[in-house]
Amino acid sequence: MSHSLPRTMKAAVVHTLGQPLEIREIPVPEVGPGQILVRIQASGVCHTDLHAADGDWPVKPQPPFIPGHEGVGYVAAVGAGVTTVKEGDRVGVPWLYTACGHCEHCLTGWETLCTAQQNTGYSVNGGYAEYVLADPNFVGRLPDNVGFEEIAPILCAGVTVYKGLKETEARPGQWVAISGIGGLGHVAVQYAKAMGLHVAAIDVADDKLDLARRLGADLTVNALKEDPAKRLHSDIGGAHGVLVTAVSRPAFAQAVGMSRRHGTVALIGLPPGEFGLPIFDVVLNRITVRGSIVGTRADLAEALAFAGEGKVTAQVEVQPLDAINSVLDRLRAGTINGRVVVTV
Amino acid sequence: MSHSLPRTMKAAVVHTLGQPLEIREIPVPEVGPGQILVRIQASGVCHTDLHAADGDWPVKPQPPFIPGHEGVGYVAAVGAGVTTVKEGDRVGVPWLYTACGHCEHCLTGWETLCTAQQNTGYSVNGGYAEYVLADPNFVGRLPDNVGFEEIAPILCAGVTVYKGLKETEARPGQWVAISGIGGLGHVAVQYAKAMGLHVAAIDVADDKLDLARRLGADLTVNALKEDPAKRLHSDIGGAHGVLVTAVSRPAFAQAVGMSRRHGTVALIGLPPGEFGLPIFDVVLNRITVRGSIVGTRADLAEALAFAGEGKVTAQVEVQPLDAINSVLDRLRAGTINGRVVVTV
Amino acid sequence: MSHSLPRTMKAAVVHTLGQPLEIREIPVPEVGPGQILVRIQASGVCHTDLHAADGDWPVKPQPPFIPGHEGVGYVAAVGAGVTTVKEGDRVGVPWLYTACGHCEHCLTGWETLCTAQQNTGYSVNGGYAEYVLADPNFVGRLPDNVGFEEIAPILCAGVTVYKGLKETEARPGQWVAISGIGGLGHVAVQYAKAMGLHVAAIDVADDKLDLARRLGADLTVNALKEDPAKRLHSDIGGAHGVLVTAVSRPAFAQAVGMSRRHGTVALIGLPPGEFGLPIFDVVLNRITVRGSIVGTRADLAEALAFAGEGKVTAQVEVQPLDAINSVLDRLRAGTINGRVVVTV
Amino acid sequence: MSHSLPRTMKAAVVHTLGQPLEIREIPVPEVGPGQILVRIQASGVCHTDLHAADGDWPVKPQPPFIPGHEGVGYVAAVGAGVTTVKEGDRVGVPWLYTACGHCEHCLTGWETLCTAQQNTGYSVNGGYAEYVLADPNFVGRLPDNVGFEEIAPILCAGVTVYKGLKETEARPGQWVAISGIGGLGHVAVQYAKAMGLHVAAIDVADDKLDLARRLGADLTVNALKEDPAKRLHSDIGGAHGVLVTAVSRPAFAQAVGMSRRHGTVALIGLPPGEFGLPIFDVVLNRITVRGSIVGTRADLAEALAFAGEGKVTAQVEVQPLDAINSVLDRLRAGTINGRVVVTV
Ligand SMILES: [Zn+2]
Ligand SMILES: [Zn+2]
Ligand SMILES: [Zn+2]
Ligand SMILES: [Zn+2]
Ligand SMILES: [Zn+2]
Ligand SMILES: [Zn+2]
Ligand SMILES: [Zn+2]
Ligand SMILES: [Zn+2]
Repeated sequence: MSHSLPRTMKAAVVHTLGQPLEIREIPVPEVGPGQILVRIQASGVCHTDLHAADGDWPVKPQPPFIPGHEGVGYVAAVGAGVTTVKEGDRVGVPWLYTACGHCEHCLTGWETLCTAQQNTGYSVNGGYAEYVLADPNFVGRLPDNVGFEEIAPILCAGVTVYKGLKETEARPGQWVAISGIGGLGHVAVQYAKAMGLHVAAIDVADDKLDLARRLGADLTVNALKEDPAKRLHSDIGGAHGVLVTAVSRPAFAQAVGMSRRHGTVALIGLPPGEFGLPIFDVVLNRITVRGSIVGTRADLAEALAFAGEGKVTAQVEVQPLDAINSVLDRLRAGTINGRVVVTV
Repeated sequence: MSHSLPRTMKAAVVHTLGQPLEIREIPVPEVGPGQILVRIQASGVCHTDLHAADGDWPVKPQPPFIPGHEGVGYVAAVGAGVTTVKEGDRVGVPWLYTACGHCEHCLTGWETLCTAQQNTGYSVNGGYAEYVLADPNFVGRLPDNVGFEEIAPILCAGVTVYKGLKETEARPGQWVAISGIGGLGHVAVQYAKAMGLHVAAIDVADDKLDLARRLGADLTVNALKEDPAKRLHSDIGGAHGVLVTAVSRPAFAQAVGMSRRHGTVALIGLPPGEFGLPIFDVVLNRITVRGSIVGTRADLAEALAFAGEGKVTAQVEVQPLDAINSVLDRLRAGTINGRVVVTV
Repeated sequence: MSHSLPRTMKAAVVHTLGQPLEIREIPVPEVGPGQILVRIQASGVCHTDLHAADGDWPVKPQPPFIPGHEGVGYVAAVGAGVTTVKEGDRVGVPWLYTACGHCEHCLTGWETLCTAQQNTGYSVNGGYAEYVLADPNFVGRLPDNVGFEEIAPILCAGVTVYKGLKETEARPGQWVAISGIGGLGHVAVQYAKAMGLHVAAIDVADDKLDLARRLGADLTVNALKEDPAKRLHSDIGGAHGVLVTAVSRPAFAQAVGMSRRHGTVALIGLPPGEFGLPIFDVVLNRITVRGSIVGTRADLAEALAFAGEGKVTAQVEVQPLDAINSVLDRLRAGTINGRVVVTV
Repeated sequence: MSHSLPRTMKAAVVHTLGQPLEIREIPVPEVGPGQILVRIQASGVCHTDLHAADGDWPVKPQPPFIPGHEGVGYVAAVGAGVTTVKEGDRVGVPWLYTACGHCEHCLTGWETLCTAQQNTGYSVNGGYAEYVLADPNFVGRLPDNVGFEEIAPILCAGVTVYKGLKETEARPGQWVAISGIGGLGHVAVQYAKAMGLHVAAIDVADDKLDLARRLGADLTVNALKEDPAKRLHSDIGGAHGVLVTAVSRPAFAQAVGMSRRHGTVALIGLPPGEFGLPIFDVVLNRITVRGSIVGTRADLAEALAFAGEGKVTAQVEVQPLDAINSVLDRLRAGTINGRVVVTV
């Protein structure tokens, strides 16, 4: 391990599910064989962190633990046997902390489906801290020319919407509808434009639709003022792909209606419960509805490359790690525009 | 037009939606330019005929009309300009009577999605009659070595399940679960085996599961006796593809549970209403749910070829056209095994 | 037929294969049932026209005939039964004059492979004339906001490179190498950029490489000065897709070397003879080499849409039809930059 | 390491490229961390072993080394940290000894294209010995119900043809032409039938064509007696997929001619030099020519599963390891039917 590491570090820790995080000084973890230690510079705040802290998903994390899966920084130490990254490299530690490497999903480029996966900030400690351990084979390589604060959200929000757009199978020149222009959606608009797609942005807030237009959206619909399905069918014949970033069930149900015949609806949010799939429409119109969860390492590398070329830039609000509980409260209340990144 | 055609023919006609069909003697239709007239020998009875006769779908047919979209027979007359079929050819007249030929779906091999399509036995007269008009560019060419009664169900049931299996994207050597072993499902088992797939058959009746095993199913599950999702996951890790032929909403909901991670569920039935899609499972497991409606002309040609090679044989019960109302009653009651074909 | 049509028209006619075209006054063709007559405004000149006039392809055209398959203009008359276009519509008459509509290729969105196809300016008269007959189901619909002279090259050059790029299967964010920046290649660079691809342009002329850069190419290589395969591997790891627009066999052979492992090389030119495929490289690197010929009607509609949005603009030199022989001579000599369009 | 291992073992060693192998008694290798040691029971003999022993490929192996990449047996010892296999497991050690795990190919299920790969029997010692080291993450799991001698050829011949067939993209019900019915081809016929394909077998020896028919080929052509391209086009319209197992350049050239329009030719052999690709035919017929090299771990697992179900059985001639030089001589002379397996 490197000589210059401190003994302790600041971290935001969940001690009790459903309670505020506690800012503590705790030991810097020791880097074992095959591991690396990353000195976090910035860490994006994601909806999933709320579920981690609240413990409201079926499989709960075990406190105490440190959330955060959009942590980016420098490699501070490398464990025995690590050859692929070195001290000083700029990396990010994504949700997919590691996977088994030999199941059918790991062997076919779908390690995000590995049932033996570990998840950063959930089953292992994450990026709401000065230091975090990582698997060198699963970290993202950051482009040199983008700051830590700006690149952090690509680690989850970016790769999630990029993968979701790929999963719609919409081709350059076709239309994709992006439902919800928040932390995920405003990034999705940019990826979609960079991928040669036409973009219809749907939200209930005019300022978010203004943002979508500035980012390149070709068509915007305020779902409070008119029926987006009707509008998309009359104006563009329906969307070839629909990306549902919104976490509400009504948005999910609406999405099928926005799809063109033969279109694909990709779901990337995780609201609780079920959504009613209208069988007649889905069958007669040959609609495909598909779930999509984060992205693989190859997806992440591609998503980071788009950001490195300046084609995608997350709008970030920077806060200190100490403010994490108020940030989470605002996220819970839905009052955040873009993405909050905490500096560490 | 041919010299030998009679003036009138027997037909089963819907005069009032929701009322029994009437067996009538009506004029043989005249064959116009670009049309052909087919002398029906046998006509399969499909669930859709119930919906046509009852008028319980959103877009209703206009009485009086003749149902039936699995009619097969000889070409009796060809209209002006028809060059691709000739008198005496053995053909079938499928659900897709014709399509526009120039919309985006028609141009890309998805004419089943054409919004200008006509449907046999629904928007135009169908095969419950001695003669039926057809578009020579949309009829199926029947294999020489299969009788009319046996081939009739391929025109809708066969091509529908064959296309649905293709839409699951399951590859040879993988598992497909077929939910419901009735008129559609018992044909689906045979297509799946001919396509090199492993088959898990799910039904609530042991005799239907026995039939599935005789037709090659590798695994059968009685959904009344055990949870098919649980069984499929424990025995085979879940199915790569799931074909839902059953027309019940519980079967639809169950289907997602039978899917392996990364699997695809193809819906080919048309029960009314919605089915609750479990968002968490669909997203985390990257499950694809896709509607599929009959099949294109290319699909039909392929489906007929499998039957012509003897790899797929529909189990048929033959009845006279005069018995059509009692057949429809039994279909409504769910007491038919395999497929009923009426001879004309 | 419309009342205002003249009796005769000017046309450039091949009377003897291998001899100059003759500018003649000949009868305006009569529009039959299912046909339309197009008043040509501009007509692009393509390499294929040379082969037509010279008769040096295996299947020769039958003189006398009128070449030209990039003719664009107004619909001047519609034949009986035509419902999908009307007088005054702006259309283009592409290489694929018509196809059978019922073979396996026509049924699956690959009508460009129909063995019964007719070809404009080759097996039927083409656009080097004031009027040309066309099949209304095969003409391209022109965008309103692009002039005839600028849109003409999209009818063949545009759709050919657009389809070829699709056939490389390169995805947004990946690299495509475009070999040859002439009449085809300079359009290909623009399509590739609009499709979100990174472009490496390869040519032997610095002015053409300058043009490529102005049109958005990210990397240019002068193949006379350095080995493009070596350069592409050192700079970008090889190209995911390679589009060979050059009509020389050396360019074909070089293309395989530019491909990344797992890459695809699309051939769209038609030089005579064979090209030596290096088996070891193709097998060990899993390289795909694929021929691509013009594009389907769906491809054409998409290619025209990109032009209509201003994302692709062919550089054209306009000449009168009377100058056709000198234009063809310059094309034969390889001294044309961009694309020549003759006005009629 | 296990207590019962001997100190030395018998092995067939290449000491000088181009010279006969020497049967020697050499030390059993020590199993390091992350490695396993396999007690070989049988080892298939592949054409590639000739190239290894002769050193006639561009990148040469470094003597002394032990060839063999179809070695199968029991796990005799496991190194530190190995958790996925245990002593006594039945495994096979394929050509792909290991790969880097983090390049773009390794991350997308194409580890066979990893430029950092090690190859068994070439860059590391192989299976012509009593013991061989292996990477537990890259060995194939053998089905319980197939003997070592029968399963050995699946490790290379089997997975190579299975992958090649997948790469033709031929679907169940379509035709695949298999050129060359030797050690690879006779296995390919069986995989193709199990995948629901129609098979046309092409060879120059009637006894091999007889074998093909017994294994299920639907059509056979003796290429010495008639033109296979002509025959396939007249009888079946050309093949949707063509698998070229033959190692001769004439067979490669012939393969393109056997393809249907829109078909794919997969090359899996490695004859030296180039083959002349007829550009006109490839472009006009939209033919795809694709190299394919062995198969990934997922492909291998699938290939072994087909064998485990009894759908594919390699015809093997068993010889003692001591006879390896005479076996290689016969392979060089082309006088072997099926596949030779040496027992160790
Ligand atoms: Zn895994
Ligand atoms: Zn997240
Ligand atoms: Zn249509
Ligand atoms: Zn039906
Ligand atoms: Zn052209
Ligand atoms: Zn055709
Ligand atoms: Zn081998
Ligand atoms: Zn690698």
